[in-house]
Amino acid sequence: MYRTHSNGQLRAVDIDKKVTLAGWVQKTRNKGFMVWVDLRDRYGITQLIFDAERTPKAMMETASQLGREFVIQVTGTVIERESKNPSIPTGDIEILVSEISVLNQSLTPPFTIEDETDGGEDLRMKYRYLDIRRTPVRKNLVFRHKVTMAVRNYLSDKEFIEVETPYLIKSTPEGARDFVVPSRMNEGQFYALPQSPQTFKQLLMVGGMDKYFQIVKCFRDEDLRADRQPEFTQIDCEMAFIEQEDILNTFEGLTRHLLKEINGVEVGDFPRMQYDDAMRMYGNDKPDIRFGMEFGELNAVAQHKDFGVFNSAEMVVGIAVPGGNSYTRKEIDKLIDWVKRPQVGALGMVYCRCNDDGSYKSSVDKFYDQEDLAKWAETTRAKKGDLICVLSGETNKVRAQLSALRMELAERLGLRKADEFAPLWVVDFPLLELDEETGHYHAMHHPFTSPKPGQLELLDSKPGEVKANAYDLVLNGNEIGGGSIRIHDKETQAIMLKHLGFSEEEAKAQFGFLMDAFEYGAPPHGGIAFGLDRLVAILGGQETIRDFIAFPKNNSGRDVMIDAPAPLDKEQLAELNLKLDL
Amino acid sequence: MYRTHSNGQLRAVDIDKKVTLAGWVQKTRNKGFMVWVDLRDRYGITQLIFDAERTPKAMMETASQLGREFVIQVTGTVIERESKNPSIPTGDIEILVSEISVLNQSLTPPFTIEDETDGGEDLRMKYRYLDIRRTPVRKNLVFRHKVTMAVRNYLSDKEFIEVETPYLIKSTPEGARDFVVPSRMNEGQFYALPQSPQTFKQLLMVGGMDKYFQIVKCFRDEDLRADRQPEFTQIDCEMAFIEQEDILNTFEGLTRHLLKEINGVEVGDFPRMQYDDAMRMYGNDKPDIRFGMEFGELNAVAQHKDFGVFNSAEMVVGIAVPGGNSYTRKEIDKLIDWVKRPQVGALGMVYCRCNDDGSYKSSVDKFYDQEDLAKWAETTRAKKGDLICVLSGETNKVRAQLSALRMELAERLGLRKADEFAPLWVVDFPLLELDEETGHYHAMHHPFTSPKPGQLELLDSKPGEVKANAYDLVLNGNEIGGGSIRIHDKETQAIMLKHLGFSEEEAKAQFGFLMDAFEYGAPPHGGIAFGLDRLVAILGGQETIRDFIAFPKNNSGRDVMIDAPAPLDKEQLAELNLKLDL
Repeated sequence: MYRTHSNGQLRAVDIDKKVTLAGWVQKTRNKGFMVWVDLRDRYGITQLIFDAERTPKAMMETASQLGREFVIQVTGTVIERESKNPSIPTGDIEILVSEISVLNQSLTPPFTIEDETDGGEDLRMKYRYLDIRRTPVRKNLVFRHKVTMAVRNYLSDKEFIEVETPYLIKSTPEGARDFVVPSRMNEGQFYALPQSPQTFKQLLMVGGMDKYFQIVKCFRDEDLRADRQPEFTQIDCEMAFIEQEDILNTFEGLTRHLLKEINGVEVGDFPRMQYDDAMRMYGNDKPDIRFGMEFGELNAVAQHKDFGVFNSAEMVVGIAVPGGNSYTRKEIDKLIDWVKRPQVGALGMVYCRCNDDGSYKSSVDKFYDQEDLAKWAETTRAKKGDLICVLSGETNKVRAQLSALRMELAERLGLRKADEFAPLWVVDFPLLELDEETGHYHAMHHPFTSPKPGQLELLDSKPGEVKANAYDLVLNGNEIGGGSIRIHDKETQAIMLKHLGFSEEEAKAQFGFLMDAFEYGAPPHGGIAFGLDRLVAILGGQETIRDFIAFPKNNSGRDVMIDAPAPLDKEQLAELNLKLDL
Repeated sequence: MYRTHSNGQLRAVDIDKKVTLAGWVQKTRNKGFMVWVDLRDRYGITQLIFDAERTPKAMMETASQLGREFVIQVTGTVIERESKNPSIPTGDIEILVSEISVLNQSLTPPFTIEDETDGGEDLRMKYRYLDIRRTPVRKNLVFRHKVTMAVRNYLSDKEFIEVETPYLIKSTPEGARDFVVPSRMNEGQFYALPQSPQTFKQLLMVGGMDKYFQIVKCFRDEDLRADRQPEFTQIDCEMAFIEQEDILNTFEGLTRHLLKEINGVEVGDFPRMQYDDAMRMYGNDKPDIRFGMEFGELNAVAQHKDFGVFNSAEMVVGIAVPGGNSYTRKEIDKLIDWVKRPQVGALGMVYCRCNDDGSYKSSVDKFYDQEDLAKWAETTRAKKGDLICVLSGETNKVRAQLSALRMELAERLGLRKADEFAPLWVVDFPLLELDEETGHYHAMHHPFTSPKPGQLELLDSKPGEVKANAYDLVLNGNEIGGGSIRIHDKETQAIMLKHLGFSEEEAKAQFGFLMDAFEYGAPPHGGIAFGLDRLVAILGGQETIRDFIAFPKNNSGRDVMIDAPAPLDKEQLAELNLKLDL
């Protein structure tokens, strides 16, 4: 036994006990005749004391030579601490050490193992095993564990069965790029790593599992945008004999349970918003509704004056920034620069100050009188003291731009509070999405999503208008889950795949097994998948998923700690019947 | 809502309730004026009744046309059943149907969806989604879920944290072959899929996580022996600041908990056996101790007579088969043929009947008298009525042969009872194992296993005799878990890698990150990994892991349902900078 207690365990009631502790040297204070050591482990910190009057000389020597992050084991007596430290649970006591053993030494760590470290991202990732010793990182990982345990126990109690689906599956051309795995036993053939267990969970429904879930790794070989990982974790769920309403209720229940269990927050019924409304009011299919600043569409009140920019725009839309009239001209100019950044892409911004005396002062006073501007204020729900920001242009683009501005301003105004939770269902997504580059429609959710009843016939005439039985769960402006009611008959699935550009042959080769399965009594079914990394980060009050992943990869998909990926031996390549073609 | 109740739910107390049910048509009985339908879902079977007197004609028509595996939804009234069926929980009631809706039709399934099916293995795997509808398969998957929930809750309650480690890691030449994943973003480089999260869990210990576990997929590109899968699931665990004793106690606790929770079986303290003793007494490092038939080494009593076969053998060893004297000469000849099969590989078998009158009759009576044979009986603990089977030859080979015979005979004698559980710790494994082909020693467990204290210096002189801090948990003759106390200092790790044939450069390239980590205060640590597939199968009273995996692969590593692996598009290969070299 290396220890009788952890370093977070001892209290005043333990005084006079003889104990053995082990852990890392967090820090030492050496006053010559006295040495104090903070001993750390996952559970806390305990202060050790060595004192020349009571401690043998050799041990004083050992104690005074302890370096940071040395691993030691000590035996001693719990004594009352002279100057108590109320900020830690063990702050009433300390250990008068009678035996010490240095279990391992440590070089000086490349960064400080403190809550706030001096290590940059790259260094921390290279030495992630040291970074994990830091309390904030460790707490995130423990937090993640608590969330997954809560998810599993909740779903299991509701009769969901966790079923493991295979990782070595088949590559499909649909969607993002697959990671592939050459098969040695099947020459010239490849497995793919799953982007999600989508078809397998549907087959489990065909197989009568009724309620399935799995917390599972998924893989996408995408060029990594900020805060994306090539491997990520999903809470994957599917139910049979259900309608959309059943899914929403079930997973609203799960989310409410997590918010209560993990965050101690009670939330009421989740509001539901149509996709079209979300786009109209927030310019975004995952609106943050912790705050207002809803869009006001100004076409009716701002067009047909002499302002050509607005007159020629498909959409003129504004938001009221609470208290924004206090911005100086310089601050507003900076805001205009901000929306003109390439990442946002607006060509300019019109603004209108709402003065405290009820008058208005806009950047386009030449074209609009007070009465016009009052209508702007009314439409954007601007109050005295606010600033109205107006963008114009092509509808989709200008909505995205104004949405970015809304989020940025809310962030600056402190309206995106980490400890406030505003969940929201966004429903009635379009079935198809136009790829502007290729001019082709592709599945907005995936090819297995069912269209709304009676809308299948619109696929030919108005493909962009067909709505799907698809829904997203949004939390604080982040999509944390998304799903749909699936197609469960062969004919509809064939029509869908045809519209997505699959030839009959391709459809059969890729998804024949699923369509075959639909011929043997497939039940109505649907499901949802949550992005666990994101969910955990948001519940943890943060937005960077990397902080909640033990060993994340960098933006080039590299693990800089183990230095992977790496070149392969020639023999290994030859065994796989592969040649590099660089 | 597709249903108000499941098909396993309704009881006599529900009589007169109006209910809606949905599920699959298990079978119909049609007597013209009456149609009965067994409606099935995951939860059970409910009998539906349509009766010409009370049911509209059109509905009678629909009911009489229902085929097996049709998916239907019915509304009706719960009524008392005339002829009750005590063999199912809903056997007291039936549903008098007032509304029916066929949700989906079904082709005739390729095999019967019954407990005992007429489908062969290949067909069942191709249509696994139908196979899963069968109660035995579904029960196995539900059973697996229950086991994993019990494992997670037990470990979590003991302060273990489940941490997800990466799947895209680095290939290592040590051990089995890796599956590799070409990286598109890092040209010419490859990830590997983990054979286990071994180094990551050790880094988590260096990182102070203290107690880690993970239920995790692992991958090995091996030529598949029977009942091996290229992807398999491990319960992976690691603890810091522990000695071997702590690990054994902790995971003995877990196993005992599972046996109690899942099987309702109480087992006492697990016996512990040294590796050397296991090999001596059972010829096997995973002995089944549900029954006796321990080996008796006969060199002392059978050599130095005139029987040249034994005299020239390194090892002469026998077992007593309880009641085996009742075997006919023909049966014994068959047994001799059995041990001579190439899979066993013995050159022959000597036997000795232990007659009820206390006399002996052996196949080598020419060389051994009654007194000699009495010693054989004593050494093998044979009783009157037993049969002594004796093999001879090179020690390792003959032990393996006799072990195979022991297991085969125990199986035939019904001594391997599925509902009896005999766990066992096998300890003190050798550190190194001689590869007879190459003449090199390799790590028996893995290169991170620590030698017993003080034995490091034997590495040069007697590498085969160095014992490791390594242990296996054996249940009913199967290794269900194995682990070790790890090396946690750079020097020892370097010595180990050197002895395993790594150059300094290779060691640094492959495991530099781990050895670096050991320089920053690595705590003493160790762990264990359980093979979940095997564990679940054994707890479920079966030995075939495939029956406990939702979508297993066949012996060529193929998923015959989705037809994977498969050839890749040329474009996909080109993007990965790869060419086939067949």
